[in-house]
Amino acid sequence: MLDKFFEPRSVAVIGASREAGKIGNDVLHNLIQYGFKGKIYPINPKSDEIMGLPCYKSVKDVPGEVDQAVICIPAKFALEAVRDCAAKKVPAVIIITAGFKEMGREGAELERQVVEVAAGSGMRIVGPNCLGVINTATALNASFAAGMPECGDIAFLSQSGAFGTAVLDWAIGEKIGFSKFVSVGNKADVDETSLLEAIGSDKDSKVLLGYIESVQHGPEFMRIARETTRRKPVILFKSGNTAAGAKAASSHTGALAGSDKAYVAAFNQTGILRAEQVVDMFDWGLAFSYQRGIKGPNVALVTNAGGPGIIATDAIEKSRLKMATLTKETVEDLRKALPPAANFYNPIDVLGDAKADRYDFAIRAALKDPNVDGVIVVLTPQTSTEPLPTAEALVRASSEFGKPVLAAFMGGPRTAEGFRYLMKHKVPCFPFPERAVSAMNALYRQRLWLDTPEGEAPVFSVKRDAVAKMFKQVRAAGRTQLGEIESREVISAYGFRLPKSILAPTAQEAVKAAECIGFPVVMKISSPDILHKSDVGGVKVGLKSAKEVEEAFNAMMESVRKKMPKADIHGVLVQQMAGGGKEVILGMTRDPQFGPMLMFGLGGIYVEVLKDVSFRVAPITRADAEAMVNEIRAIALLKGARGQAPADLDAVIEGLLRLAQLCLDFPEIVELDINPLLAFARGEGSMAIDARIVLKADGPAKSAH
Amino acid sequence: MLDKFFEPRSVAVIGASREAGKIGNDVLHNLIQYGFKGKIYPINPKSDEIMGLPCYKSVKDVPGEVDQAVICIPAKFALEAVRDCAAKKVPAVIIITAGFKEMGREGAELERQVVEVAAGSGMRIVGPNCLGVINTATALNASFAAGMPECGDIAFLSQSGAFGTAVLDWAIGEKIGFSKFVSVGNKADVDETSLLEAIGSDKDSKVLLGYIESVQHGPEFMRIARETTRRKPVILFKSGNTAAGAKAASSHTGALAGSDKAYVAAFNQTGILRAEQVVDMFDWGLAFSYQRGIKGPNVALVTNAGGPGIIATDAIEKSRLKMATLTKETVEDLRKALPPAANFYNPIDVLGDAKADRYDFAIRAALKDPNVDGVIVVLTPQTSTEPLPTAEALVRASSEFGKPVLAAFMGGPRTAEGFRYLMKHKVPCFPFPERAVSAMNALYRQRLWLDTPEGEAPVFSVKRDAVAKMFKQVRAAGRTQLGEIESREVISAYGFRLPKSILAPTAQEAVKAAECIGFPVVMKISSPDILHKSDVGGVKVGLKSAKEVEEAFNAMMESVRKKMPKADIHGVLVQQMAGGGKEVILGMTRDPQFGPMLMFGLGGIYVEVLKDVSFRVAPITRADAEAMVNEIRAIALLKGARGQAPADLDAVIEGLLRLAQLCLDFPEIVELDINPLLAFARGEGSMAIDARIVLKADGPAKSAH
Repeated sequence: MLDKFFEPRSVAVIGASREAGKIGNDVLHNLIQYGFKGKIYPINPKSDEIMGLPCYKSVKDVPGEVDQAVICIPAKFALEAVRDCAAKKVPAVIIITAGFKEMGREGAELERQVVEVAAGSGMRIVGPNCLGVINTATALNASFAAGMPECGDIAFLSQSGAFGTAVLDWAIGEKIGFSKFVSVGNKADVDETSLLEAIGSDKDSKVLLGYIESVQHGPEFMRIARETTRRKPVILFKSGNTAAGAKAASSHTGALAGSDKAYVAAFNQTGILRAEQVVDMFDWGLAFSYQRGIKGPNVALVTNAGGPGIIATDAIEKSRLKMATLTKETVEDLRKALPPAANFYNPIDVLGDAKADRYDFAIRAALKDPNVDGVIVVLTPQTSTEPLPTAEALVRASSEFGKPVLAAFMGGPRTAEGFRYLMKHKVPCFPFPERAVSAMNALYRQRLWLDTPEGEAPVFSVKRDAVAKMFKQVRAAGRTQLGEIESREVISAYGFRLPKSILAPTAQEAVKAAECIGFPVVMKISSPDILHKSDVGGVKVGLKSAKEVEEAFNAMMESVRKKMPKADIHGVLVQQMAGGGKEVILGMTRDPQFGPMLMFGLGGIYVEVLKDVSFRVAPITRADAEAMVNEIRAIALLKGARGQAPADLDAVIEGLLRLAQLCLDFPEIVELDINPLLAFARGEGSMAIDARIVLKADGPAKSAH
Repeated sequence: MLDKFFEPRSVAVIGASREAGKIGNDVLHNLIQYGFKGKIYPINPKSDEIMGLPCYKSVKDVPGEVDQAVICIPAKFALEAVRDCAAKKVPAVIIITAGFKEMGREGAELERQVVEVAAGSGMRIVGPNCLGVINTATALNASFAAGMPECGDIAFLSQSGAFGTAVLDWAIGEKIGFSKFVSVGNKADVDETSLLEAIGSDKDSKVLLGYIESVQHGPEFMRIARETTRRKPVILFKSGNTAAGAKAASSHTGALAGSDKAYVAAFNQTGILRAEQVVDMFDWGLAFSYQRGIKGPNVALVTNAGGPGIIATDAIEKSRLKMATLTKETVEDLRKALPPAANFYNPIDVLGDAKADRYDFAIRAALKDPNVDGVIVVLTPQTSTEPLPTAEALVRASSEFGKPVLAAFMGGPRTAEGFRYLMKHKVPCFPFPERAVSAMNALYRQRLWLDTPEGEAPVFSVKRDAVAKMFKQVRAAGRTQLGEIESREVISAYGFRLPKSILAPTAQEAVKAAECIGFPVVMKISSPDILHKSDVGGVKVGLKSAKEVEEAFNAMMESVRKKMPKADIHGVLVQQMAGGGKEVILGMTRDPQFGPMLMFGLGGIYVEVLKDVSFRVAPITRADAEAMVNEIRAIALLKGARGQAPADLDAVIEGLLRLAQLCLDFPEIVELDINPLLAFARGEGSMAIDARIVLKADGPAKSAH
């Protein structure tokens, strides 16, 4: 679908220039210099020939087909150029020019017009305000970047052109091979989602790295990401994850990012590996590009130094990885071959005077061990150390066992040659042990993701029509907030169990209702005008007899009439008083990018004071809901800490799934809380005690998927 | 005190060798090659001359005084050599030789003998099992390291020789200047504490970096650290901070490390900046060495790229630093000088086409701004970018404003020259924005530490003798666990308020006691033989009348006599039933390295399930105790969340201070819990409801300070 961006047979450079320093000069130069094999058409009304190529006044004048156009002219002429491309039926247009959405309202309008033209002609657009596109496999450098990376299998996308230049410069310096490089700029059309899809099926790309500041279409992005990450690892660095950062980001590209919590949840649910620091992206990318996947968590360390071995061990313990327990055979083999002072257990310490042969033996012993899934080799430059021969031995061993091998060669000039040799021969080498562990951990996280069953959001049989009708009525009445009885009906329609409940207009009926429900009961004033019932004496709990109910009714009416004389009172809601159970809260708010963000936490102080909550973006699978419940710090309280009965977590999980379905079915719900949901002892289900639902103010929102 | 290690007038190399590859060859070679100006005496019974210097059979044969001896001979001969040094009155001996404590029991015994000889003669020892000592100021390289760092003001200590070799190799490659380098090895004598003290008063050292795996004498270390960090920053990387890491560490050097929680607390209380990753140590060290301190938290960013500016902003928001709010004047100045599309607020975006002049203007505008305490300059290699001229402008500006300036030049070959220029001219430059922010944050953490009043542990007037007497009685009775009444007496002697409490042997006396105390009361069986009172029906709460007390007494006696017929029953403890208040827990355990580690948390699930606790090592200042209380996640519950009355935190803080005093006065207390301490509403104090005290099994421990 994006083929013509990567494998065009012909490229027109609109605004090609012979003047050094102009972007149109750089782009044309890059196309020619790096050996693009297709046709190149410089477009410039003022020239007949540039860099030895015939030049055309307009893209429309080009004799043959044009697969790709790169627009480098000022923004005010860009729309006309896009129209020309549409007339010429150019399928792929890269707009490098800046001065669009990122420059405010006028630019945004111009960008809108460009998109409109493109949409009308089926043309796809990369940019505007970007660096361009590179595909090493076809020697295409349709960018104004200062250089061309080597061929490789890392695909890279960047929402920041400048970040892209830094990455390219780094890759060129370190001789890191890239497959594709796309600077997406303002993402008027092609965005992270289109690229995830394209790279997912690109045979040249083994891993996708990306720098993004926002995601445009959350639900679609998640759908595509979920598919792509099954095929190859996707590592994204998302900036703007603090309030100040997000503010800086939105003034930068005018993008409205969702909350960072939503990104955390969305990445988590779709198997995207989120780089916490910029360096992670490169380190992890190298591990995936250069090495093979890891089958399990068990890592062996081989080191010539105790200290750095401990550092690596600490890092492993803090990661998802484990220190491998070597088999007896391996320990015996090591004991026979290494000096007695060596450590034959993991970390394997080959001692400070180890030369390459001792490393070689230990590395092979570790790789051979069935208890070992991957090996990290740590080296410090001691007197007898042989960094280069050790690197050579490591490269040889790395190719023989089908397990990933990473290295941490510490130091400077004395280890540099070995370091470079490793990198050249595709054993990722890092200057510090922690980075090697972090990269190995990324391999393992990908393994865990691949091992997670795909799962689907279950679909419960619910009374959707009843809810639709209710919402219609509420909106017709000019309200956005549902009353208690309405909210109860909505969640009941989606399968939540509720306390038995009867509306009683008189004291007599209240007594009858209580007798029917069974004592004890709760009584709540029922009035659309009263939001905070307890503030006006409108709630009584634990009423144990007919007499108490009658007295409570009268007292309540008196108190409410006194405090809110104008309130329209429907009566009193007599409710079953559910006892026992743990209070949990299920909630939903709408994230601007990702839509329905579900929340889970324990009731009371846990949510409000301790902020001990977990989030996921709907739709969620059963595994997502399970993870959500297990993620809170206080989970032990639900599982039966301190001798209490374990709560019915299955019922809570089902509640989250039903809530997700409700929020997806009705995008007009902007806020929903079930607070509390009582989770009874295992096997005894749950009961929703109270719910609060707020609808969108103006007409139903568009469905989130 | 360690002068002769750093500024000896003469050095003897015991085991000097002309054979390349021998440590004795390397050491002698390093002394000569790097230009040590004092006398050098090779010692080797088999040679008359080595490297042109006259050689002696024993250090005793050297004609003049010997200030320092470096022992490079095998371990089995080392003790004799140390004896020779003692005879010769050599004040400073470096034992490079391995094969001591790190090799098991026999080696440990040898090390003990060496220490004994040294102690007898007043000799100080560095090592054994170390790399040696370097002092660039005196051109002394008494080590077998492969190279010599440049002169500088960074002091470095390493418990791992191999880590030391890596650091030296790095420093040499990057041309980072060091003042002193000490590999402390097994720390038989000179350890981190001696070096903290020495470097603290060393005029050549501006900052101390260190790699350690353990601290030997916790209380002394803390005392010295607290003084040193007031004079210069101390950055330590402590490895072995996970269970597996600690295990690897103890098999490595045989050192018994305390718990990582104790290290966190001790570093925190003494102003040591703990490097979380190895790279932090170097990054922070460079910032302190190359730049000046920062006066406040406000940082301005100058960048030619939005993306990396956002990354830096995020990092600042996550640190202790703040994004500076530029003054109106600065914003106006920037608006006049920069293109309209630039960002004149913080981060200051000079745009992708900025050359050095635009950077220069913006950097100066930021540094001049009174709202700005420090500046970070971010650069990406875009088409018009001028990395070197920008670096030059940055270096000039850096010297003019007395504020710290750090840089992040991203990329590779295109930014390398500017990067190197900055480093050469003492503007620390990092490849990623996050590392620049982390370094600036370290400067600010040091500022915060210097701004913290020193404080002292308050001393309360207590009944120390009463406690001493009680402990004597308990131990005389062959017990280590105190009974409830005994524990009550101990904490009461240290000023804790307790519920009124009377021991009643009969039902009648129980009733009298309850009437005297006032209803309601609690009753607990009192017997040295019954630890778990409630298991045998030995606890009743909420007794509201004489009748209830009498019945409860009889029922309790019957139940206990039935269940534990042989128990020696003293009667029943009738206790005031304290109502209200928040339950908190004050605790103490002894850390093997740091001694009394105090713990604070909320009662019930908060400590047991949520592990929401804070730690400090006694002695503590009032500020420490305050920090401890405020550190728990649930602090809002004590401060009056959800409309509750705020608890008397002053009383809790005083409780922690009194507990600290008790534990320092009596090192024989190995465990102590006050659980719960009821914290009443503000101004109403606290009450200790229950306490548990365990003494050391065998004789009183040595005092921890």
